[in-house]
Amino acid sequence: MDQVMVIGLVAGFITTLGYVPQIAKGYRTGRMDDVSVFMPLVLIAGMSLWLAYGVLLGDVPIMFWNGVSIALNVAIIAMKFYYGRGAPPVTR
Amino acid sequence: MDQVMVIGLVAGFITTLGYVPQIAKGYRTGRMDDVSVFMPLVLIAGMSLWLAYGVLLGDVPIMFWNGVSIALNVAIIAMKFYYGRGAPPVTR
Repeated sequence: MDQVMVIGLVAGFITTLGYVPQIAKGYRTGRMDDVSVFMPLVLIAGMSLWLAYGVLLGDVPIMFWNGVSIALNVAIIAMKFYYGRGAPPVTR
Repeated sequence: MDQVMVIGLVAGFITTLGYVPQIAKGYRTGRMDDVSVFMPLVLIAGMSLWLAYGVLLGDVPIMFWNGVSIALNVAIIAMKFYYGRGAPPVTR
């Protein structure tokens, strides 16, 4: 594995990690009202194309991390609907 | 420009577009309470590495769109601080 691929893998790990605090905050507070559902929806559409781009280039970091990021954004959408609009705050 | 680069450019355009609804919603409601500040912070760290990855590979779509996405996430952090914690909702 060359150094460039290592940078790509670390870069993908960190950007993928970026969605985790949003999921954690949503779980902790039981609120996702201020999060736009269109953010994860549009991100998933774009990441699906990045996944295709990675497949076409045979680029492992792009394929792998876009796959994981898609899953995390599906979770954000699911939480958004689960907690609903204007649900009372929850203390966890 | 080959077809794979076109896919990469479109993919980057769409993922970058994903942060716009969050900025629009924040502006409209004047609230960013439920958005974790660590999401854009960590995304910026990761995207900076993606930018480096793109530079090392000479990959134009990766360089360009990560640059724009970094700017949009800086805007999300700025709005988060500007609207503050528990600010009253604004109708625009």
